[in-house]
Parts: sequence; C-alpha cells; structure tokens
Amino acid sequence: MTTKFCRVPLWEAGRTLAAVAQGREPADTVIRDTRLINVCTGEILPHTDVAIRLGRIALVGDAGHCIGPETRVVDAGGRYLAPGFLDGHIHVESSMLTVREYARAVVPHGTVGIYMDPHEIANVLGLEGVSLMTEEAEGTPLKVMVTTPSCVPAVPGFEDTGACLEPEDIASTMPWDSVVGLGEMMNFPGILSGDERTHRIVAETLKAGKTVTGHYSLPETGAGLNAYVAAGIRCCHESTRPEDALAKMRLGMYAQLREGSAWHDLHEVARSVTEHEVDTRFACLVSDDAHPHTLAEQGHLDHILRRAVEEGIDVVTAIQMVTINCAQCFHMDDDLGSVTPGKCADMVLLEDLEGLKVRKVWIDGELAAEDGQMTAPPSPSPYRYPDRAKRTMNLGGPVTEERFAVSAAGRTQAPVRVIEVVPEKVGTFERRAVLTTVDGQFHADTQRDILKAAVLERHRETGKTGLGFVTGFGIQEGAIASTVAHDAHNLLVVGADDRDMAVAANALAECGGGLVVVRGGAVLCRVALPVAGLMNDERTAEEMSREVAELGRAWEAIGCRMASPFMTMALLSLACLPELRLTDRGLVDCRTFRFVPLIVEEEA
Amino acid sequence: MTTKFCRVPLWEAGRTLAAVAQGREPADTVIRDTRLINVCTGEILPHTDVAIRLGRIALVGDAGHCIGPETRVVDAGGRYLAPGFLDGHIHVESSMLTVREYARAVVPHGTVGIYMDPHEIANVLGLEGVSLMTEEAEGTPLKVMVTTPSCVPAVPGFEDTGACLEPEDIASTMPWDSVVGLGEMMNFPGILSGDERTHRIVAETLKAGKTVTGHYSLPETGAGLNAYVAAGIRCCHESTRPEDALAKMRLGMYAQLREGSAWHDLHEVARSVTEHEVDTRFACLVSDDAHPHTLAEQGHLDHILRRAVEEGIDVVTAIQMVTINCAQCFHMDDDLGSVTPGKCADMVLLEDLEGLKVRKVWIDGELAAEDGQMTAPPSPSPYRYPDRAKRTMNLGGPVTEERFAVSAAGRTQAPVRVIEVVPEKVGTFERRAVLTTVDGQFHADTQRDILKAAVLERHRETGKTGLGFVTGFGIQEGAIASTVAHDAHNLLVVGADDRDMAVAANALAECGGGLVVVRGGAVLCRVALPVAGLMNDERTAEEMSREVAELGRAWEAIGCRMASPFMTMALLSLACLPELRLTDRGLVDCRTFRFVPLIVEEEA
Repeated sequence: MTTKFCRVPLWEAGRTLAAVAQGREPADTVIRDTRLINVCTGEILPHTDVAIRLGRIALVGDAGHCIGPETRVVDAGGRYLAPGFLDGHIHVESSMLTVREYARAVVPHGTVGIYMDPHEIANVLGLEGVSLMTEEAEGTPLKVMVTTPSCVPAVPGFEDTGACLEPEDIASTMPWDSVVGLGEMMNFPGILSGDERTHRIVAETLKAGKTVTGHYSLPETGAGLNAYVAAGIRCCHESTRPEDALAKMRLGMYAQLREGSAWHDLHEVARSVTEHEVDTRFACLVSDDAHPHTLAEQGHLDHILRRAVEEGIDVVTAIQMVTINCAQCFHMDDDLGSVTPGKCADMVLLEDLEGLKVRKVWIDGELAAEDGQMTAPPSPSPYRYPDRAKRTMNLGGPVTEERFAVSAAGRTQAPVRVIEVVPEKVGTFERRAVLTTVDGQFHADTQRDILKAAVLERHRETGKTGLGFVTGFGIQEGAIASTVAHDAHNLLVVGADDRDMAVAANALAECGGGLVVVRGGAVLCRVALPVAGLMNDERTAEEMSREVAELGRAWEAIGCRMASPFMTMALLSLACLPELRLTDRGLVDCRTFRFVPLIVEEEA
Repeated sequence: MTTKFCRVPLWEAGRTLAAVAQGREPADTVIRDTRLINVCTGEILPHTDVAIRLGRIALVGDAGHCIGPETRVVDAGGRYLAPGFLDGHIHVESSMLTVREYARAVVPHGTVGIYMDPHEIANVLGLEGVSLMTEEAEGTPLKVMVTTPSCVPAVPGFEDTGACLEPEDIASTMPWDSVVGLGEMMNFPGILSGDERTHRIVAETLKAGKTVTGHYSLPETGAGLNAYVAAGIRCCHESTRPEDALAKMRLGMYAQLREGSAWHDLHEVARSVTEHEVDTRFACLVSDDAHPHTLAEQGHLDHILRRAVEEGIDVVTAIQMVTINCAQCFHMDDDLGSVTPGKCADMVLLEDLEGLKVRKVWIDGELAAEDGQMTAPPSPSPYRYPDRAKRTMNLGGPVTEERFAVSAAGRTQAPVRVIEVVPEKVGTFERRAVLTTVDGQFHADTQRDILKAAVLERHRETGKTGLGFVTGFGIQEGAIASTVAHDAHNLLVVGADDRDMAVAANALAECGGGLVVVRGGAVLCRVALPVAGLMNDERTAEEMSREVAELGRAWEAIGCRMASPFMTMALLSLACLPELRLTDRGLVDCRTFRFVPLIVEEEA
C-alpha cells in the first residue's frame, strides 16, 4: 500500500519489529492479557499479549520479554481485543460534519479506517472538494482512504452539477497517496450498455492497480450483475435482499451489507449468510451514510456489529466483516485488518462480546480514544475550508414563488406522476394521481399527501427548475428545503405552499446551504451547512445532532411523521436509483433513464 | 497484477466481457451444465454455465444467450468445474525437467499456475539462470509466476555457489513482468538476528509491492516466528507439525501445507485444520519439490488434493487451498483463483469429487489439456539452453580417490559426527559413532551403515572438498553421486569405497552433471542433467521417470532400501535446515550455524 496509512512502512520497520519480537529491543507499548479476536482463524485466544513498536505489531502471544523500562504496559484484564474496524464504503458528507469532527465521532466507536467516497462534495466543488477533504483528514488519526468519485455527475445528461469529473480527471487522482480506488460506480446503466466513457473510468483505476467499488442496485442477478462484475468492479453495497448479496458473493464480489441511518438493509441481507452455509470471506459490513444523530446516539461500526449479531451473525464472523474481509477487498491486508505481526497496530479493546462496548482504540499504536472520548491530541491547527468552498449557493438572485408554479397547460384536471418515498428505503415508486386545476395550475393536495417538489439548479445560476409531486412525507403545511439533495446537491424544496417554498429556498441561499423548515412565511428551524451546502465545519457531532433533532421537531410541527425524513428527502433527486426521481431538469424514470412528463399524456 | 499472466488485461477486456455477459456479443466458448465448485462461498452449484471471451470469464450462470454461431460449446454433462489449480511454492528444477516439459507434466493434472522459485539454477548460474527459465516458460500455457531467489547462497559463508545474488541484484528483478515476489527467505537466522543485508532483500520486495515468501523451519512458534512474520514474510511451507501450521495461520501467515515427493508433511500438518475449528483461508497446499516419478505416476496438485481429502479435509475446502487462498496470498485474486466474472478462464473439469480425476483443463479460455494429455499446441520453436548453461562442471581436472581420504590425524580410533538422514523428512539428526583407523584414515563402515560423504566444489575450480559420514541409506558397496545437492549444487558423493566415489564424480563431470550409481569401478546407471547439472532439456517426464526408476534399481543393487533416496540425499548439504549438514567447506551444525569438526574433539 502507499505509505500514507501507517506511521512507518513495513519495509522500514520490519527489522526493528523482528528485534522487538525477540526482546532485543523494547516495545513502545505492550498490551497484556487480552482475549484476542483472531480474525485470521476465526478463533478467540485467551491470555494473549500484543507488543507494539513504530506503530506496528511486533509480537502477538506472550510479550513479557518485550517490556523495557520505557515501555507503556496496558493490562487488558482479559478483555476482548479486536482489529480496529474498517468501513469499506462511506460518504462523510452525510454526517453533515467535516472530516475531523466525523473522525472524533467515529473513532471512539472503534473505527480506525474508512474508505471515503467524497462524491457529494465533488458534485459541488469537483476535485478541489476531494482535495480539501483529503487535506482536512490529515489532521486526524482516522485512516481516511479515498476512493475517487466515479460519477460526477451521477447520471450525465439528467442533472446539472457544480462540477464534472472526466475520465482524465479521475485518472489524474490515481497516483495520489490518499487514493486507494474508485468510488461507487453507480452508473451501472453505463457499464451495462457498454458506454465507453464509463468503462474508461473503471479501466484507468484497474490499470493503476487500485480497487473499483460498486453500486449495483438492480434486483437482477443474472446477465446484468455478471456484466457489472466482469467489468472489474470488486464490491457493492446496494443489496437489499438476501439473494442480491448471495449472488454477489458467489460471483466473487464483496457484498457490503449495509446498515445506514436512512436505510436499514441488514435485517434482510444478513440472511444471505445466516440462512446459507457459505464461506463469509466476501461479506463486509458498511454504513454508506450515517446521520449525525446515529453517530452521536448509536455509534458507528460498533452499532452495525450489534445489529449484525441481532440478526444472527456470529460475533467473530461479524468482526471479520469489518476487519480482514474489508482489508482483503482493498488488497490492504498486509497492513490493515488483523492483529498479527507486521500490521499497523490499529486495535479495539471491547468490554464484552454482548454489548460490544468499545473501551479503548489504538491507531498506529497510539491510544486514540478511550471510554467514548478521543484521546489523540487535536491537530495543532484547526482546519478551515476556504471561502470558495463556502460560496456555493449560486441562484442568480432571490427565488420567487412563481418559480414553483406547475402550469396545467389548459386542462381542468389531469393524471400526474407522483414520486412515492418509502421511509428507510432507498427506492422510490412511481404513482399516479389525478389533480384538479386551480387558477390554471396544479397545486399540492395535502389531504391526499401529495406535495409539490422542486429542484433548483444552484451551482451556476442557470435558473433551471425541475417540478414534480411527491407522496409519503405527510406534511400538512409550509415547506422544507435542502441543499443535501443527492447527487447534484441542487436546491431541493418540498412544500404544501409555493410561497413557503420560496421562503425556504431563500433562507438556504442566505446561509450557504443546509436544511430548513418554513411555515406561514417564517423559518421554523434552519441547520446551516455552509461547506458546499453539505457540511458544517464549526459543529461537533453532538451539536449537529441536537440541531438536526430540532429540525425533526419542526418537520413534525408541519405534519411529518417519518423517521429520518432528511435522508429520505435527500434521495428524491438521486437519478441513479429506481423508480422515479426529480432533478433540476425534470422528472426521470430511472428504470429506463428517460425524462418523463409530469402530466401523464397517454391517459389524459 | 502484471499483464503477463493473462491474454488481455482486465482493463482492456472489461467492456467486451460486459457485452458478452448480456448477449450483445457472442462468447468464444461456453461450458454448459457444470457443477461449479464455488471457492468464494464454498458451495457446489449445479447446472452452472460459464461464458468465456478474450481468455476471461464473462458470465457464470445461465449462458444460453451468450452463444453465437461461432461459439464453441462444451457440454460438461454435470461434471464438476473448479478454478485451475495454483501451486504457491515450487522448484521446477526438482523435477529434473526444464520448464516446458514440467508444464507438459503438470497441466494435464489441473495445474494452471505455479509460483516458481528458481533457486536451484540461481545457485549455479545466478540471475542468468532465472532469466533462462523465465524465457523458456513463455512457450507454455502454464502461468509461471517467478519469485526471485532470496538466498543465493543459502547460508552465506558456509558454502561455495556458482553465483551470489546481492540485494541490488534481487531488487533489479522486482520490476520484471514475470516476478511476483521474493522466493523463500530461508535465511531465517539472518531475519531473526537482524542481519541488515537479509532484511534489505525483504524490504526491496515489499517496497516494490510484491510478496515475500518464507521458509521458517524451526519448531519454535513464539518470539522467533513472530519476528519472522513481523519482518514482512507472508507465507511459509516449512510446517511439519500441526501446531506449526496453526501458529502461522493465527499470526496471519499463509501456511502452505506441503506434500512433496520426498517429504510427506500433510499427514501431520492437515491436523492443523481438521482438528481445530478454524477459518481455513490462510491455508494452502503446495508441492515444493516434485520428483519426475511423482509427476508421471501420481500427478501434481490433483494428487495433493486427494491426499488432503484422505487426511480428512473437506474437498471444497481443499480446492480453496489451491485456488482462491493461493491467489489471495499473492494479491492476485483479481485475476486468478476463482471461476467468477472478469477472472482469467483458468479452469479444471473433474470427473468426480472422489477420485478428483482431471478431464479437461482450460487456461486463458483455451483447452490446454484433456484426459491426461496436453492439447495446447507446442511452442513453434523448441527451447534450447545455451552452452554456458550446460558447462557448469568446473572441477579443474579429474577427481582422484585421494580427494575422499579422511585423515585420522594420528589416532587409532575416535568418535566422529555422523549425519542421520530420515526418509521422506527434510530434517537430519546429528549422531556420533566411534570409528577405527585403517592406514591412518577413517573409512566407511557398511556394517553399521556408516558411509563416507563428500561435497566437491564444482562451480569455480576451487578444489574445496568437505568430508563427513552419513547413516540411513543402507548402501553396502560402491558409490553414488549427484550434482543435485541443495542449495549450492556442488558435487555430492556418498560411498562405501573411495575409488568408486572418484569414478562416480568423474562420470558426472563428463556428462555435465546428474545422478550416478557406481559399483566396482563401473557405472551401473547414470541420469544426465546437463542444464546446470540440474535438469535435462531433452527428456519428457515419462522418460525421466523411467531413467530415475532405473537409477533406483541401481541404488537397490548396491543395498539401498529407501524410497526416493535421491531427494533425501540431495538435502545432505542443505545448510539451512537442522541439524547437521555437509558443504564443500565442511560440516555445519545448522542449529547454531557453526562449522564443527568431523572428529568430536571434546570426547576424544
């Protein structure tokens, strides 16, 4: 691997480690009397010590002879020691925190490394955004492995983004020290249809010897999935049924079983391993997206491990899924993923195997967190995103309510397409509803839970606006708006009232983006996300969690009863997932990848 | 991986494969109705087709739609299809065949790739020898992955070799397309003692991102083994007890369970996985050395798989040990080791899982062997080793019987050190015997099975001769000689009679090296190995097996009752294995790495 994710590369440390293992030189740290979760053999080995030097493991076994006068000795008192947890697919932006604060939130939960796909910021700021987050990551002990966003825009031709990454741009990042692969290739239609540009992006990654991560969300597991895997894509976190995950593992693809804040797939997909007698080396556990509330209240991979055990996965097997399996997926198992000699001393001390409570976390041999708090010294210089990253609301002037008008085109009533959102699922459904014209326009109908939705281009002042209708939120009045609107992160507004929709849009324009709830022309609650309209670099996870909780109460105040509505809403415009989505260019049928009219012509 | 071991790299093939998987382009070959040994999940999946294009797998499942008018269709009739077998550690020279003939011997047994450590030829001819074998390998469909010999000489300072590979020499091979790693680091004393040169060799390999293979033959599995693994060494084939192999797997080292022609470790080491509830992903099966007779009569990895099953290893688990586990060990699982989309179409069709009889072998999608015979067209130009490679017997003139005289140094009798060889084991023991002087010299004593042994330097006409005694062969008269004498491959002679020893030495000098049995001043049988004194480039495996069988009868004729005595004899001078060995410089205690006198002084 690159030398980026360890204190000293193995080729420099090996000789010293061999000396320490034999007691000729003292260890920096010795952890005594652990119950070692051995992810290589799947065993639990009692009374095991670990000796550490230069941030790497020198010896696993009896380490009494490695202790010198200066050696720090930690008595584990028989507690369980596991390799540090690795999240094989994560978008930090979803936490609304910038990287350092994200690290502060997850490291105490045992996470030592993440495979970060900075796809969201790239849609707003391009490679500059990727660089900024990568740069910020250097100030944290968390190992932030970058996968270069592959699909910016997500579905070319269907939306306007702040940036566009061409194959050459992506190829240019492959030599970066921080880059270990390609971010989720969500343009599976491009892969399946043989689109040359899409395949070139994959090819450039493979040629650089790096890992291509995937996103294949079709229920089809035959010719299509085979084509997708054959293209060189190594892992995928988009399984929602046990048969999806099983099919992927059988095709030699790492099935990254997901338990994110807004989509709880594990209940279903865990059955791929609990109901089948399979070798589980191709199964991983990932979060994909984690809401600040989840991080603050439930944890990160420790929470997902608890969920996996609840679903019937053996605890050691589950731990393999966030350690060695993930490291092998990325060909980084020479350095990461197991507590064995030569590896980075990235480890987690667990109180027990029932609650999986994390007591201590070491990264590169240094204590990074203890009892839920970071202990690693904060970076000497705070990281501030540059102004350019905070001026991304480019709407070309105030938004007026006329921008949300849906013309009835001379009809008195007509059937329209309605996007149905489903709580905690990524998919949407296309529904139909007959609306009646008022003043020559179609309006929201809160009685039938049909709200108006709009996506306003916000990167380049193009003035483009996509209009549609949505059901599932249950809002009775007012409007909500968000610049967290996958994947183009344009300004998404949903409301019962055009005027409130305009107020919501302008409220976000004013603060550089974020989330807002408006009622009766006034802001009920606003969460500012000034960094690219996605993150706040001045909030802790707890503060952000509280702000978002307050926002949740505002949503409730206007009638929404959905859990985590923000992330469900944020996917309204995600044009790479079925069935129907709305972008700044209009309604997209994501099964056929065609724009479709709001009014259903053939039934008119 | 490099582009060397596939027909087309995945980054060039991916787009076409995706088209084939979906039936937009026809497959080159479709294999229908297999029972697929799925090494990813450890399952057997009935009624599975495989579609192939550009030498790679496009689809696994139902491939009816991939068949075009030109597609070759093979009906497997429900037979078992497994990934092609990979041997993670092998010295081709031990077969006495050169690479193409070796390939002709093993490919029909299901072997599609070997990790070749051309350590023997390197000791005679240096990197030139490595290049020659690598060059020859290009004329065979067998994938010959090279690991650069790490220890030439094996134990510096204890023997004279034809060449010496310095760290810079080794580093210079790392960019070679054919080189995937470092050959077995048998200088574990150097690793353990912190020898800078030895660690530099490992470091250069790690820095190049390639795999360091190991050789740790101590029974110690604590501090020493930890030190060895911590140095960056990823696999080891030197386990002889189940606890050795288990300790390695627990330390994240691939335990390459060995079943070679001359050492049958599997009976013991298989217990590491059959008697422990362990994840077996860190276990592999390797041959290390295969005698021509074994290849001709028993097979290669198919034979080792049968042995593994006999020892109680589940057959699918065993197949994982010669496919995906090996590929993962070398970080080559993106291309090799499983029948999954995108991988090289290297596959084996098995008649059944009981006999594991290999019916067909495909390499890069082409039928390479069928029913025990190669079907791949032979290389258009036969490969001939250059003269330089065939003139390696440099003894500086005829050998006289005086060269074998062991002076009694004025004693009438004295205790001497005797090397005890053990059939089918790599270890030797140090024994003592009191010999009585005749004519001022110590002679062989066939009544007590004590024979004289001599190692004559044969690379550079230095005239150096090491003398000793050996027990275990049971020879009653005459002499035997060999230039296959690990690892320096000097001229090794064992005999009951000094005159016959001289005749044997001269007989080999004459033919460029090989193996010979002499009785009463006459050659009983001789096997010529003119290429570096190690291989014959004009014999088939069957011919070589017959010649060696004849040699065996000659051994028997002079009294030897040992099975495979050649390879046991060949290790007499292997100064990196315990306990006592003989080199051209004298007797070496391989526990302490010190020269020891033949006559035991302290007891004299």
